[in-house]
Amino acid sequence: MQRFIDLADFARPQVLELLELARRLERAPEPQALRGKVLGLLFLNPSLRTLASFQSGMARLGGSCFVITPGNGTWQLESRDGIVMDGAAAEHIREGLPVLASYCDALGIRAFAELRDLASDLQESRFRAMSALVDRPLINLESAANHPCQALADWKTLDEFGVPEHGKFVLSWAWHPRALPFAVPAATLHMAALRGMEVIVLRPEGFGLPAAIMDKARQAAAMSGGSVRESAERADAIAGAHVVYAKEWACAAAYGDEAADAAARRDLRGWCLAEDWFVPARPDCRLMHCLPVRRNAAVAEQLLDGPRSLVLRQAYNRLPAQMAVLHRMLKQP
Amino acid sequence: MQRFIDLADFARPQVLELLELARRLERAPEPQALRGKVLGLLFLNPSLRTLASFQSGMARLGGSCFVITPGNGTWQLESRDGIVMDGAAAEHIREGLPVLASYCDALGIRAFAELRDLASDLQESRFRAMSALVDRPLINLESAANHPCQALADWKTLDEFGVPEHGKFVLSWAWHPRALPFAVPAATLHMAALRGMEVIVLRPEGFGLPAAIMDKARQAAAMSGGSVRESAERADAIAGAHVVYAKEWACAAAYGDEAADAAARRDLRGWCLAEDWFVPARPDCRLMHCLPVRRNAAVAEQLLDGPRSLVLRQAYNRLPAQMAVLHRMLKQP
Amino acid sequence: MQRFIDLADFARPQVLELLELARRLERAPEPQALRGKVLGLLFLNPSLRTLASFQSGMARLGGSCFVITPGNGTWQLESRDGIVMDGAAAEHIREGLPVLASYCDALGIRAFAELRDLASDLQESRFRAMSALVDRPLINLESAANHPCQALADWKTLDEFGVPEHGKFVLSWAWHPRALPFAVPAATLHMAALRGMEVIVLRPEGFGLPAAIMDKARQAAAMSGGSVRESAERADAIAGAHVVYAKEWACAAAYGDEAADAAARRDLRGWCLAEDWFVPARPDCRLMHCLPVRRNAAVAEQLLDGPRSLVLRQAYNRLPAQMAVLHRMLKQP
Repeated sequence: MQRFIDLADFARPQVLELLELARRLERAPEPQALRGKVLGLLFLNPSLRTLASFQSGMARLGGSCFVITPGNGTWQLESRDGIVMDGAAAEHIREGLPVLASYCDALGIRAFAELRDLASDLQESRFRAMSALVDRPLINLESAANHPCQALADWKTLDEFGVPEHGKFVLSWAWHPRALPFAVPAATLHMAALRGMEVIVLRPEGFGLPAAIMDKARQAAAMSGGSVRESAERADAIAGAHVVYAKEWACAAAYGDEAADAAARRDLRGWCLAEDWFVPARPDCRLMHCLPVRRNAAVAEQLLDGPRSLVLRQAYNRLPAQMAVLHRMLKQP
Repeated sequence: MQRFIDLADFARPQVLELLELARRLERAPEPQALRGKVLGLLFLNPSLRTLASFQSGMARLGGSCFVITPGNGTWQLESRDGIVMDGAAAEHIREGLPVLASYCDALGIRAFAELRDLASDLQESRFRAMSALVDRPLINLESAANHPCQALADWKTLDEFGVPEHGKFVLSWAWHPRALPFAVPAATLHMAALRGMEVIVLRPEGFGLPAAIMDKARQAAAMSGGSVRESAERADAIAGAHVVYAKEWACAAAYGDEAADAAARRDLRGWCLAEDWFVPARPDCRLMHCLPVRRNAAVAEQLLDGPRSLVLRQAYNRLPAQMAVLHRMLKQP
Repeated sequence: MQRFIDLADFARPQVLELLELARRLERAPEPQALRGKVLGLLFLNPSLRTLASFQSGMARLGGSCFVITPGNGTWQLESRDGIVMDGAAAEHIREGLPVLASYCDALGIRAFAELRDLASDLQESRFRAMSALVDRPLINLESAANHPCQALADWKTLDEFGVPEHGKFVLSWAWHPRALPFAVPAATLHMAALRGMEVIVLRPEGFGLPAAIMDKARQAAAMSGGSVRESAERADAIAGAHVVYAKEWACAAAYGDEAADAAARRDLRGWCLAEDWFVPARPDCRLMHCLPVRRNAAVAEQLLDGPRSLVLRQAYNRLPAQMAVLHRMLKQP
């Protein structure tokens, strides 16, 4: 495996193999598998789970990491082509990226959406520009519109809790003080569709996911016997659900316009998921969220701390899921 | 050993065993003892010794670390219960702590006193809230009112320099530009008392240590044949001393009130320890300090650089002392 | 090897041995050579290449690193002697440096020029003060007027591309929005001279390198059969050149005076190296730069991305060159 950038780059059986490898590495650790291997981690945005779990995963496989955080101990990185660099950024990705790649066996890059131009973010312009400069195995640590490590960990979590492959999966918008990127909703939607689930995107009017994200998920669903639809009706969407996955995201029509997005979400504080949302769901319906989550803003704390919540297990599963990716990518055959 | 949070959680013979293990690991390194083990380090406050010595100690035992510093590459962590998280903090300790714990074999947490409410800090409200969320072996990297790693290293240092178990130990207040927590004075006082020493707290009027700290030390002294008393008279306190341990701390009566604390210390610049303080002491009386120390403000540089000073050895001893803790905690039997 | 602070501390054959060792470690990795060894890295200034390549190099040799960045997770470090420390800095290098050294097998220090006093920077006052406090093997990660790791990597790069030992090497000043230190120009000039090259420093009037730097390079040239001269005439300087090494540096006469330096460089935006500069050079003349480089300000992007450019290989060579230094320094005989 040379690249782990998008779960959609893999056929369903390949994903299932990765999940099986993740479970095997949990049962039978391989503390020497990646001996002498070095993973470079480039963080252009904050991180807790990704930062900790990749370092831990490499260590548990016998390898090592270095971490680079531009603007925080490292030069600010410029990414625009053709620019005269007489401002704050001292280094361009055209040098920075190949240089980092030359020091490691695989490179991970976190580069959130810029939240200025929707088309550019959906096309992954920034991540593509960076990945084109890397001639090493590459891992997407969350890009503008994707988060394949989270998706793989979530799939493993669904399996562990016996959620049926064709079960009902509700991806619900949740309130947040400001616009967040489409990375996790897009990755989650695609993952659930590829798993074969009946997926419903529950969101207020005006917060529909962009067509490109919906279409990609529908293609995955078509291959896996699943389905994807949208709804603004909470009771209808959640009726009989196996899982409600809460996630905050931006207003696509107001993308890049902070004031317009704030106006669009002004009256939506009620979209803080709480136990009463689950009345129409199956009794054992689960709550999922990728974390970090704003308690009592996006999800009520009683729900997060209650028996429905899988959020801690989702986060834990980042570790074995990513170890499987690293093993597949870097282990000598 | 599941927790290393407070030296008072251990009986005196257990502390002596840890010290013996520390010396053994110095003589006979065990570079494979913690192979494959991962220590997570969560720093909510700055660090030099702790940050470097734990990473070095794990490496020398064959293990690895990851470091997380909220607000500096990682999300800011909220710790208040029941709050609506619509401010700056993106993650709550109720998720953040268990998640980090799930990625490692042991977790270390540094969380200084909040310096707002004395009772809350003395009760370790913040550290207790965090430790309750961690189901892994846990190490206190300095909390509101404790610093057991420093205390263990200091005990080792006293042993190395032949300071008698029942020798005279003066814990002296030292000037500092602003209020500092009670963590090190509390841990030092308890350590010296548990070692069996004749302990005197030398401090200006108004800077007595809180009763809870004094009482805890007196209980340890009672078990070890030591004693604990206070004095504001420098010559009396230092007469015949084997050790003077300099430390800066807050005015308890002005706790949480910056202006009142500043007023209380305004005329105390003379409490900068200097060579002439040692005239009534034993000729070979030693100077100790946990570092970092403000030269010529808390302690005169001639003293720090002179033959009495053990400060560098105290800092070095953090390494073997902590390696003993890690070995006891994580080594397979 | 106890110190790697200045390439001038080594005789030419010793440098050639290090380069041979670097090539050997590329061909025949030694993943256990530094097992259990710990390298401390102290960064008082930003870094990308040095930070990543030293961590990767230690990992590839079986060792480990810890990284300390004062002011960023660690206390600010004071370095002035005799000062009353009642300001922002909580720790003095007189404690901080020996303590860090006591936790590792070798220490690397990055401490850029202070850009206030030219004589002080040229005499390496700050780095000397720090290195005097370290009783461990010590590596200069870039000081006020030196960068031996870069020089060693650059020498290796020249060898790899078959640049003749007595070939023509032009060190050319390049425009930059503000004054930069003399570290890389000084190290590069000395390296090229010690390699035996015909070295020409091409720079605008007013931007000559300080006499101490020129003299040191001339001494190296005298030992190696090379030569060193200055020129302000671009065509003359570059005529027949094998290599043009672009580098930005301060106006020595305006050192420490930001406004005067800005005035001195105001009309020098034309000193942005571009392809047409190479017309009088040899057809296969190479472009070198230590990175980071400001595209289209110091060097045109067409040149950086074109076939003349060795900048990525120079950066990559930091890894094997530094591994050779670490191996020589820390490998048990």
